[in-house]
Parts: sequence; C-alpha cells; structure tokens
Amino acid sequence: MTKIEIHVIGKPHSRYIIEGINQYKKWLSSSFETRIKYYPLKNYRNLAPENIKEKEADLYLKNINESEEIFVLHERGKEFTSVEFNRKINDIFNNGKSKIIFLIGGPYGLSSRILEKSWCKLSLSKMTFTHEMSVLLLLEQLYRSYTIDIGKKYHF
Amino acid sequence: MTKIEIHVIGKPHSRYIIEGINQYKKWLSSSFETRIKYYPLKNYRNLAPENIKEKEADLYLKNINESEEIFVLHERGKEFTSVEFNRKINDIFNNGKSKIIFLIGGPYGLSSRILEKSWCKLSLSKMTFTHEMSVLLLLEQLYRSYTIDIGKKYHF
Repeated sequence: MTKIEIHVIGKPHSRYIIEGINQYKKWLSSSFETRIKYYPLKNYRNLAPENIKEKEADLYLKNINESEEIFVLHERGKEFTSVEFNRKINDIFNNGKSKIIFLIGGPYGLSSRILEKSWCKLSLSKMTFTHEMSVLLLLEQLYRSYTIDIGKKYHF
Repeated sequence: MTKIEIHVIGKPHSRYIIEGINQYKKWLSSSFETRIKYYPLKNYRNLAPENIKEKEADLYLKNINESEEIFVLHERGKEFTSVEFNRKINDIFNNGKSKIIFLIGGPYGLSSRILEKSWCKLSLSKMTFTHEMSVLLLLEQLYRSYTIDIGKKYHF
C-alpha cells in the first residue's frame, strides 16, 4: 500500500482540528497508509528563530529518507487545483514511488537548508492558516484526491 | 459594532467543523457581530442543477441588502494574502460601511445572476474544499484579520 507521511513541528491543540484529522486519517485508511510525525516545539523556546529553524531542519533531515518524494509546504510555493494535485500524486505513485512525504514547518518558517533542496514547494493558499489547520487541509485534499480516483461523489 | 454575515447553502454536518465554527464565532465576538445564515438544501433535490442555482439566487437576493458590501466566494475569484484581506476589510469599515456579507454557493455553484454583479469574488485557495470547510476557513481569516489589527500573536 502506498504511504503518506506528514512531518510537522508542534502537535495540534484545538480539539476540533484533532477530531478532523482523525476523521480524514480514518477515511484515508483504505487508500493510503497515513502517518503523521509530530516534532516537539517545547525544547527550543529560548533560542533565536534562526537557531530554532536549524534545530527543526536537523530533525527533518534525520527522520526522512531523501530518496523519497518530498513536498515542502510553503506560503510562496506552487498552488495546485485539487485536480492538478490529484494528477501529481498519481504521477508519483505510478512512477514507482511508494511513499510521499510532506513537511510542514514551525512558526518561524523553514531553514534555508530545507528550502534549497529541489523538493516541490506546495502552497495550499495565498492566505496564512494555522499550522494545525494546514495538516487538516492537506489530509482533506488527499482524501479529495482519492475520491477523484474512484469517482466518488464528495463535493459538499 | 461592525457586522459580518455569511450566507451559505446547506448546514455543516461534520461535528468537527461545527465545533470549529463555534470556536471562531466565540473568538470573533469581541470584534464583529457574526451571523451565519444557512439556507436549506433539501427542497431542491429533484430539480436540475441550473434550476437549483436559480432557486438559491432567489434566496440570496431576497435576504441580502444589496447596498451592503458583498463578497462572493468563488474558485476563480481573487486570492488575497491574509494581510491584504485584513486591509480590504478595514478599508470597507473605515469607509463608513458597517456590514460585510459573504456568499458561499451550493454544490452546483452560483447563478449567473449572482456572478454578474459587481461584487468582489474571493477565492480562499486554488484547491476546492468542502463548503463547510470554506465557512471555517473564512471565519479563521476574519479572526486572523482581527489579531493583525490588535497585534495579537496568533501564528501557530
């Protein structure tokens, strides 16, 4: 089974977001093996933002296999329509990859060590949303992608 | 107090969305008087999509005062950053308007009678989200706009 991994700095704390994430993880379970890896925020509070971003980059780079297909969520990244996103996901899996990794940065953004990689930068919206909302939106789009594949009605 | 009205076809049904909407309505209560007007979906199921859109347009036009400031959520509308959206909202209220109305269409989209108006078309994302998610995202951006105004930290 194809795998989706979402790596994110900081756990969601709003109850409604946690509930929404759980709903989509359940709905996705027949199409992808979905794993969300949350990295702690709490150890870095006394560091300068630049240093925090480097600590976070260390965590990402230690925990991901760079030979996998990686997307970095970024506010100035490429915007896809849901249909284009579906096509992109399918192209990756059809080209022999079995896992896609999404990285969602912390409150100070991402280290240049991450941004300099050739990984696709993906923007969910020109608007800024909370990071926990980004996890939810990303799962929603992955579920929407699955419904496009199977022709399931899921509009409203 | 300035007023925000959101007119939307169909009630939200996911529990987590209802909870999120209630959270943001509560958080917004010190800055805007927020009212969400849900129109029923159920009466139109046997009609053709084109006729449903006209029925919905009748409802909107009957229930809104066209002299108010009106935004229409539309997938090919203008995308704002959160800061641009904040500026737009403030410009409207600073120019003497006391109410902003947002229209969110039904599953078949909006009648040309609505789209032909000179009202601002607003897109939250190139991606398609459920309509109930659009209500939540819109409230989140209105709350974010308020936090920008008061300089409150609300990033994560």
